Amino acid sequence: MLKQIAFGLFLLAIPFQNYGQDSPNVIIIFVDDLGYGDLGAFGHPTINTPNIDKLAYDGVKLTQFYSTSPVCSPSRAALLTGKYPIKTGIYGKRGVFFPDSDKGLSSEEMTISSFLKDSGYQTACIGKWHLGHLPEYLPNSHGFDYYFGIPYSNDLSPATSDWVGVTDFPPTPLMENFEIIEREPDQRWLTKRYTEKSIEFIEKNKDKKFFLYLAHTFPHVPLFTSPKFENKSPRGLYGDVVEELDWSVGEVMKTLHRLGIKDNTLVIFTSDNGPWLTQRLNSGDPGIFRNGKGTLWEGGVRVPGIIHFPKVLKPKTVNNKFYSTLDVLPSIISLVDPERSLPQDLDGSNFLDELNDEKTVHEKVLYYYHQDQLFAIRRGPLKAHFRSHDSIYGGDRNYKEYDPLLLFNIEQDPGEKFPLENLDDNIIKEFKSLFAKQVKNVVPTQSKIDSKINDNQNEDL
Amino acid sequence: MLKQIAFGLFLLAIPFQNYGQDSPNVIIIFVDDLGYGDLGAFGHPTINTPNIDKLAYDGVKLTQFYSTSPVCSPSRAALLTGKYPIKTGIYGKRGVFFPDSDKGLSSEEMTISSFLKDSGYQTACIGKWHLGHLPEYLPNSHGFDYYFGIPYSNDLSPATSDWVGVTDFPPTPLMENFEIIEREPDQRWLTKRYTEKSIEFIEKNKDKKFFLYLAHTFPHVPLFTSPKFENKSPRGLYGDVVEELDWSVGEVMKTLHRLGIKDNTLVIFTSDNGPWLTQRLNSGDPGIFRNGKGTLWEGGVRVPGIIHFPKVLKPKTVNNKFYSTLDVLPSIISLVDPERSLPQDLDGSNFLDELNDEKTVHEKVLYYYHQDQLFAIRRGPLKAHFRSHDSIYGGDRNYKEYDPLLLFNIEQDPGEKFPLENLDDNIIKEFKSLFAKQVKNVVPTQSKIDSKINDNQNEDL
Repeated sequence: MLKQIAFGLFLLAIPFQNYGQDSPNVIIIFVDDLGYGDLGAFGHPTINTPNIDKLAYDGVKLTQFYSTSPVCSPSRAALLTGKYPIKTGIYGKRGVFFPDSDKGLSSEEMTISSFLKDSGYQTACIGKWHLGHLPEYLPNSHGFDYYFGIPYSNDLSPATSDWVGVTDFPPTPLMENFEIIEREPDQRWLTKRYTEKSIEFIEKNKDKKFFLYLAHTFPHVPLFTSPKFENKSPRGLYGDVVEELDWSVGEVMKTLHRLGIKDNTLVIFTSDNGPWLTQRLNSGDPGIFRNGKGTLWEGGVRVPGIIHFPKVLKPKTVNNKFYSTLDVLPSIISLVDPERSLPQDLDGSNFLDELNDEKTVHEKVLYYYHQDQLFAIRRGPLKAHFRSHDSIYGGDRNYKEYDPLLLFNIEQDPGEKFPLENLDDNIIKEFKSLFAKQVKNVVPTQSKIDSKINDNQNEDL
Repeated sequence: MLKQIAFGLFLLAIPFQNYGQDSPNVIIIFVDDLGYGDLGAFGHPTINTPNIDKLAYDGVKLTQFYSTSPVCSPSRAALLTGKYPIKTGIYGKRGVFFPDSDKGLSSEEMTISSFLKDSGYQTACIGKWHLGHLPEYLPNSHGFDYYFGIPYSNDLSPATSDWVGVTDFPPTPLMENFEIIEREPDQRWLTKRYTEKSIEFIEKNKDKKFFLYLAHTFPHVPLFTSPKFENKSPRGLYGDVVEELDWSVGEVMKTLHRLGIKDNTLVIFTSDNGPWLTQRLNSGDPGIFRNGKGTLWEGGVRVPGIIHFPKVLKPKTVNNKFYSTLDVLPSIISLVDPERSLPQDLDGSNFLDELNDEKTVHEKVLYYYHQDQLFAIRRGPLKAHFRSHDSIYGGDRNYKEYDPLLLFNIEQDPGEKFPLENLDDNIIKEFKSLFAKQVKNVVPTQSKIDSKINDNQNEDL
């Protein structure tokens, strides 16, 4: 705890950079299950992503960027709150929220959206929410003025209702604010509709400050693409879908350019977790990394990270320090309200000052959780696995315990192929101490994901 | 054979594009054992290659580019002659030339260098040759005015003399033209010295037409880097070495820019084969592809390909049609001497016209050879393995035969993970027919690689 307080004080003492009088617009484009290796700029040979590649090339390409969980709901909770999912209860045995879930992210949590709303921003969430679909948990209860999208995963429909024994999913809802406006919408048009709604929102608010959280439904399975993109990618359907997402990014960037607000808009592009490998050719690719979605090997949590913000960040930069989605909220707070001290329960830190300064050395530590269990820790270039499993979210779990730990230099060996041997006692001690402190200091709140409508009904009886 | 003749006639009939009166300079930068995934632009997270990334981004990034062999000498022979190695005899059980080899690439073969020399170019080979180190086979016997470098691999020295049973390698020679000017040169300075010699050559010939073949010794093992690059890369020594190569590329490009000849210089950057995986952390990474050096899985032969030629090729382009090093010589001939008909024994074709035209559909076929054995064929997006092995050039070979064949859609499944099932009889028939025709029409000449000084001495006795 002392360490955390010291860290908090340290942050308070930083003379915050003045980013100018005009608070910038903020756009976060969050895609679903896209692997590290699925974009041209990140090494895919046959998926054409010229717009995202350009964003990465012109902006800051983050090569060691992490989602905070290898599955959807916890990953989204961490992005929006800046806190590990065990703190918000957005973790659990079921992995993610289902249509029979009766809980969600508490509206008392500060989120990027509630912070920006309070700071006078116009705010919209377009796409997948997956932090609770009952009214008190929906985007409009979290500081969003506007919501349009499917509130959870696109496979949670009667068509794919064999999910973990659940057999009675309602037809997939498409919502506008609190209202279900369609059931089982034609998913071929989702990417296009999300994009059009996004452009509408940007145009409407071009003279105000705005925050757009565009959380695409794809490339999560089942895969759909509008006819214009069908059979266009050499990579097949998965490629078609990613290429339509690339089109969407291009449309958003063109809109910013056309309206003359590109320079004053912070655009962040990333994915919620690694590729869902058991979906085979309908899954993405982790690139150089091991395993995928559902696991805490790098393939599960290392995601493409792109930040475009020419007003503040040196363009045409590749940055390979490590950051995570936990850092997004603190960065936005520091950007929009530099005088404000960061809440001490946040788990990330402001990366905007650092990204311009190659020399900054940060003592960053990242904790990798499987549900409420701490499985691994990264500190500097070293990643220590205490436990692991090979579940690829539907595959064989194959749990393992490592005594004392399984250590990789993740910068020299990003594929986690060559465990370090003859471990230094001090290193083991340090990782064990970090582990013990984290487990002691961060006690999980009750899981909201494992709470079901039927369970509560049972309790009521 | 009919097919080949028809193809030749077809090429003759193409109205060649006129690239202007000034024949361009040509620079080929060929690195050794660099994997597909080892460059920033091709997806590596912790190797910093800003100069090569810029070359790829500003130029044409080829994502389906092949070396013609997964080992060194045959790959180089194919690049320089535009012919499959079995035609030139640069294949064999020993894989590559050794210090006790008494043969090399015949000086009667047309090479890029002899063609350009005949066309009035100033020509230099700087770096690794590996096509025979006896005088009649050296670069100066192949149209190069100047040679500076180690004539074969940098591990063929007494320090690493347990290579395939050979125990008496002479100290590694550093040559200038036909002369050995040093023995066991300090390899830390090789990349720098090659770069300086290259810049000297460019400066000296800036007002003439020139061809520079800069064939770096690294990142082949043993790895060395100059002190300036030591311990600089998060990827460790391998990263240091690649980052020095990136520096070298930057210096060459800066020189072209400074001399005002960048636009009129065709620069090609690629690698001779995939990463040598048994070298573990001293090996590169195949990225998304399967296996590495020595094998005919994509990891062995798919290499990063970059062409920078703004005068002719549309810049900022990603091209994912498939090409190979066999296409380099025909392209250069067509560029420099558009009226000349291409020799019919060439195995590639001119890609320069195609690269500007997204619509060109070519009926390209690529044959993958293990020594003199045809193992696999690629046609369009399909790759058919008839045989395979998992040798990683030092590892377990694990030979397999496939009946009728093992088929992948290599554009949808670049990792060769999901063999196509329920194969169409016509597809099988077509691949079998291609196989039979190639074996019938292209009969291997005798191996020059398997010929040793000692063997001949024995014959003499």
